[in-house]
Amino acid sequence: MWFTSDNAGPVAPEVFEAMSRANEIYSSSYGADPIMDRVRDRIREVFEAPDAAVYLVATGTAANSLALASMVQPWQTVYCHRHAHIQEDECGAPEFFTGGSKLVLLDGKDAKIDLASFQQAVANTGQVGVHNVQKGALSITTATENGAVYTVEEITALCDAAKTNDIPVHLDGARFANALVRLGCTPAEMTWKAGVETVSFGGTKNGLMGVEAVILFNPDRAWEFELRRKRGGHLISKHRYLSAQMEAYLTDDLWLKLAKRSNEIADKLSKGILALPGATLLHPTDANIVFAGWRRSGHRAVQKAGAHYYFWPFDQMLEGDDDEILTARLVCNWATTDEDVDNFLRIIAE
Amino acid sequence: MWFTSDNAGPVAPEVFEAMSRANEIYSSSYGADPIMDRVRDRIREVFEAPDAAVYLVATGTAANSLALASMVQPWQTVYCHRHAHIQEDECGAPEFFTGGSKLVLLDGKDAKIDLASFQQAVANTGQVGVHNVQKGALSITTATENGAVYTVEEITALCDAAKTNDIPVHLDGARFANALVRLGCTPAEMTWKAGVETVSFGGTKNGLMGVEAVILFNPDRAWEFELRRKRGGHLISKHRYLSAQMEAYLTDDLWLKLAKRSNEIADKLSKGILALPGATLLHPTDANIVFAGWRRSGHRAVQKAGAHYYFWPFDQMLEGDDDEILTARLVCNWATTDEDVDNFLRIIAE
Amino acid sequence: MWFTSDNAGPVAPEVFEAMSRANEIYSSSYGADPIMDRVRDRIREVFEAPDAAVYLVATGTAANSLALASMVQPWQTVYCHRHAHIQEDECGAPEFFTGGSKLVLLDGKDAKIDLASFQQAVANTGQVGVHNVQKGALSITTATENGAVYTVEEITALCDAAKTNDIPVHLDGARFANALVRLGCTPAEMTWKAGVETVSFGGTKNGLMGVEAVILFNPDRAWEFELRRKRGGHLISKHRYLSAQMEAYLTDDLWLKLAKRSNEIADKLSKGILALPGATLLHPTDANIVFAGWRRSGHRAVQKAGAHYYFWPFDQMLEGDDDEILTARLVCNWATTDEDVDNFLRIIAE
Amino acid sequence: MWFTSDNAGPVAPEVFEAMSRANEIYSSSYGADPIMDRVRDRIREVFEAPDAAVYLVATGTAANSLALASMVQPWQTVYCHRHAHIQEDECGAPEFFTGGSKLVLLDGKDAKIDLASFQQAVANTGQVGVHNVQKGALSITTATENGAVYTVEEITALCDAAKTNDIPVHLDGARFANALVRLGCTPAEMTWKAGVETVSFGGTKNGLMGVEAVILFNPDRAWEFELRRKRGGHLISKHRYLSAQMEAYLTDDLWLKLAKRSNEIADKLSKGILALPGATLLHPTDANIVFAGWRRSGHRAVQKAGAHYYFWPFDQMLEGDDDEILTARLVCNWATTDEDVDNFLRIIAE
Repeated sequence: MWFTSDNAGPVAPEVFEAMSRANEIYSSSYGADPIMDRVRDRIREVFEAPDAAVYLVATGTAANSLALASMVQPWQTVYCHRHAHIQEDECGAPEFFTGGSKLVLLDGKDAKIDLASFQQAVANTGQVGVHNVQKGALSITTATENGAVYTVEEITALCDAAKTNDIPVHLDGARFANALVRLGCTPAEMTWKAGVETVSFGGTKNGLMGVEAVILFNPDRAWEFELRRKRGGHLISKHRYLSAQMEAYLTDDLWLKLAKRSNEIADKLSKGILALPGATLLHPTDANIVFAGWRRSGHRAVQKAGAHYYFWPFDQMLEGDDDEILTARLVCNWATTDEDVDNFLRIIAE
Repeated sequence: MWFTSDNAGPVAPEVFEAMSRANEIYSSSYGADPIMDRVRDRIREVFEAPDAAVYLVATGTAANSLALASMVQPWQTVYCHRHAHIQEDECGAPEFFTGGSKLVLLDGKDAKIDLASFQQAVANTGQVGVHNVQKGALSITTATENGAVYTVEEITALCDAAKTNDIPVHLDGARFANALVRLGCTPAEMTWKAGVETVSFGGTKNGLMGVEAVILFNPDRAWEFELRRKRGGHLISKHRYLSAQMEAYLTDDLWLKLAKRSNEIADKLSKGILALPGATLLHPTDANIVFAGWRRSGHRAVQKAGAHYYFWPFDQMLEGDDDEILTARLVCNWATTDEDVDNFLRIIAE
Repeated sequence: MWFTSDNAGPVAPEVFEAMSRANEIYSSSYGADPIMDRVRDRIREVFEAPDAAVYLVATGTAANSLALASMVQPWQTVYCHRHAHIQEDECGAPEFFTGGSKLVLLDGKDAKIDLASFQQAVANTGQVGVHNVQKGALSITTATENGAVYTVEEITALCDAAKTNDIPVHLDGARFANALVRLGCTPAEMTWKAGVETVSFGGTKNGLMGVEAVILFNPDRAWEFELRRKRGGHLISKHRYLSAQMEAYLTDDLWLKLAKRSNEIADKLSKGILALPGATLLHPTDANIVFAGWRRSGHRAVQKAGAHYYFWPFDQMLEGDDDEILTARLVCNWATTDEDVDNFLRIIAE
Repeated sequence: MWFTSDNAGPVAPEVFEAMSRANEIYSSSYGADPIMDRVRDRIREVFEAPDAAVYLVATGTAANSLALASMVQPWQTVYCHRHAHIQEDECGAPEFFTGGSKLVLLDGKDAKIDLASFQQAVANTGQVGVHNVQKGALSITTATENGAVYTVEEITALCDAAKTNDIPVHLDGARFANALVRLGCTPAEMTWKAGVETVSFGGTKNGLMGVEAVILFNPDRAWEFELRRKRGGHLISKHRYLSAQMEAYLTDDLWLKLAKRSNEIADKLSKGILALPGATLLHPTDANIVFAGWRRSGHRAVQKAGAHYYFWPFDQMLEGDDDEILTARLVCNWATTDEDVDNFLRIIAE
């Protein structure tokens, strides 16, 4: 019963096997391995984007920061939701990599950016010319930090508003696969067809050991991206092990299967909690994260039984009135078992 | 016959097995895994440094840059050899992470810093007060980029000169183990006992998949280092797989065995080449890298037979006079076989 | 009738004369001039701070950015009002000089920071350890961008809350003198006695040609400040001309006389407008800036007569219904004449 | 007898008068003053460059750093002489403004860059692709830090070599006028006709209070330059006083007259010293700086008589053998009198 984060979970066996196979050969380092050639081709195929530039890095923070740094100048803004990972959970990495771009914080339900909030922020940017920071990039996240998924229409509307203002769009897809299988659309529809220019295509939270791809549908900045990656210490020498992970991920739709599984088990958990008396849902369970509330006595019992998860917000206390509703974040992953969820639900129901 | 780099070689089987074991458990992420607790203890034990702060990152460039950034201010210098990896092969990563420190380039044979060159550079620093960049840190590398190894006395002499000027010392130990087994001293003797404050303790070039430890013998800057690591995108979420690699590395002296093996096979290769008529050695074969020259006809034959390595310098040509001596860099690793070396030597001898 | 900004006005004659006198001598450059020695002493005397470090720069943006950069690390926050000059009007200079600190935006009436808003923001900072940016400095501005002046009690309350959290306080005093004469307190009471650590002590908006002092009541960071100033290109070679301006400013209370005059004429303008039918005041006229609204027909008439000022907000239009109230920002300076104000009032009253 | 630096000298009276006149009017701030419009036109005329972008800043370090930052990326080099002001005397300002570009140091007599040294450095840049910093800009200085002046042919040869490698050229003209009057060519011939793209056109060392123009013959980066200037705190609010200085400077060839005078008086000083027994010249006196050696007894006498200048190198001592030759740097300025020089020469001759 480990629900702290999707990155607490294991690596998929297919991925481990691919790394083992990569260990049997010598290979050029720093991304010049033959597996990476196949990965590049495969991602271009999956995204229907034959000209896309494709790179691998080991962390989501690196993926997001390098992507953004190649899209904005230091004196430009990055528009994002006020609860975006790049704003709240990366210790200022975007500011570091961009050379000090200003993150402009937007509002919206379930950590999805409200179109009007974005438009207002853009209208407010750069009104006094050189005295102000200038319009930069928009960064959206799906599935969001609150477990919600943008519809293709919502992404398109934001991208259209961005395009009108010459603002390129970045998509933080740390949970890209979870969002995609929820929507049932194609990767292209969720990205470049909607107007997205650069994608952080996550793998680590969905069964890889530590690989995120960055996909630049506009390859003009590809060389700059490569230099920034190297200069940021994010060009991996034994790169073939990253390539191997990503290749396994994209083989036989493994990435979709894993995401589908983690979404389904989250659905089950979410519904199970909601069935309890007094239970609440803070955000829709669109992906693999459940934000829900139930009685304190249930929290006490399940934590005593060894469940790991975070209160949401953090500062709630196990001590107190049994009947009070405490809220929590529960993250499922591809390996979360039905047994785990059944146990969890049984215990909190007492 | 793959001698391009130690990072072209495979991961040691013990390391793979350790990662597999780490895959069987759930674990806290971002370095809070129990394996990391054991790694920290083990490194403190190995280095006889009970208070040292210990961190893992995935690349040598990250290790060096983060270490240096926590040791110097942006307006201070980093003294290093003009052929240091941080100067020549990291695309300016030290400048990026430090916020623009100036690398002051020193001379010395075999990429080992000459004491007088360092002392002269220090004497020249900051003579006109606020108009100049100020004295920062010294970074030395062992084994050097030319495959040479500093004696403990040489390290001590540089550290003493640094200490006199309040200059902290960083050791880039991408090939730490190779240097250590050559010297036959203890890790403590090669580092903090000689005056080194921070070490990049390499693993990737010596049989790991991608892990370098940074060891801060002065833990005052530990929290700053942690923040810089996160902000640089170098805090790995599924950190237990890094911990597992490092734990295996330090178990049963695996790290020393692997380094000993790669040094020995390099010795054999070096001696074999030198035995040829006209052959030359550019630098001493102290560690696992051979810088040697032999007849062009031998290069032609061995490359035709599938050997991979780089000319050194790069701009030499296979076409030309058979008897001319062309020089090359040959890097061995723990998995380099006697058969590979025997074949190589046989072919270049014709 | 020129009310666009206080920096559209002239330099006080006493200041010009001081620069002329400075032109009669040779002098050491870069701040080593004897006039600067006197300025340093005088500022320490005026602020009752015998140990303060005192530096001059040519712009308010330099003063603020260098002050903040010497107070925070790149991974720390700068708390400020969302309408602070450092947030809105410096093109991201604080981010540039600090190496990418995140400005955390606070609320409050008349651009004065609300204590609760600050406390809430501090409570929200760094809750998840290394994943978050860390608590840095608080920057307050008086007189504010909306022409309001903090009471000593308000400054003290903010500083107390900051101190509880080890947060040093910066005061942007671009209009320091205007605030001071309004309060009638001593410079010490408005700054270090209330808990302020570093002050941007403005002169340019109050009759100088281009000089701001930065006063560090905590001189521990003085040398760092000097290096940052030089590295930022803000150490002026012919520094004696800056020193001369500041000396004149502080001689015979010139700075207080000039500020008193500009406050008084702003009061007169403010009251005159408010006396008109339908007129409104957006913010209190605490200093030398009037934020007021009056009938569009009055705007039309006075702009036709040659008055210079900005609508506030900018996007109001001269065309339209005569009776609609349009709002404007009117900045007085020491040289604004009664005649100018009388004319202005007469015309807008029709 | 004040020869420490040209910036120890006074401001030309014509310049002071122009500032006084500027004080009689109200004016838009931040460079939107009508005087700046005239300055821009005049500089374009003087340089025969109708499309050039022209900006004013208050310091040479700002001019150089902002110019370079708009010409190179953080991962690119700045090639310069190892004794260039940007390398030795700006506390790392170029690294700060460029975001960490690496200065590659070149050799050459009298601080003039040797063509072969530049070509070799360029050939060595970026040989290993993404692992290396990439080719950036070339920065040359005339008159050099050693008082030498490049011929137009020398500038052209460097620019040609740069152009072949797509390397834009910056000219640090802190003593532009001194170089120009020595050559007797046109400003266009010394700059864009020779291949220079951006010029720091100095005024401060030649009779202004504190103004340098930056001239971008390629205006494509003009808006970026403006943003960098503002973000660097170098956009002066009461800009008209800078404009007024520069206008006076360019009126009736004042700038050329002042430079001619300081060159001539330096010639006289140089020749006078060389006529002494044992005297030496370290560098040619091409501009307004004399690098010369004479007997210690002469140094002792003249310093006792109140002369101000620096030993070159700094670490020479007044105590010691009378007959030993000590070397010094003597900087003349437009206001250096014949009487000063005559006295100086008389005293050192005893």
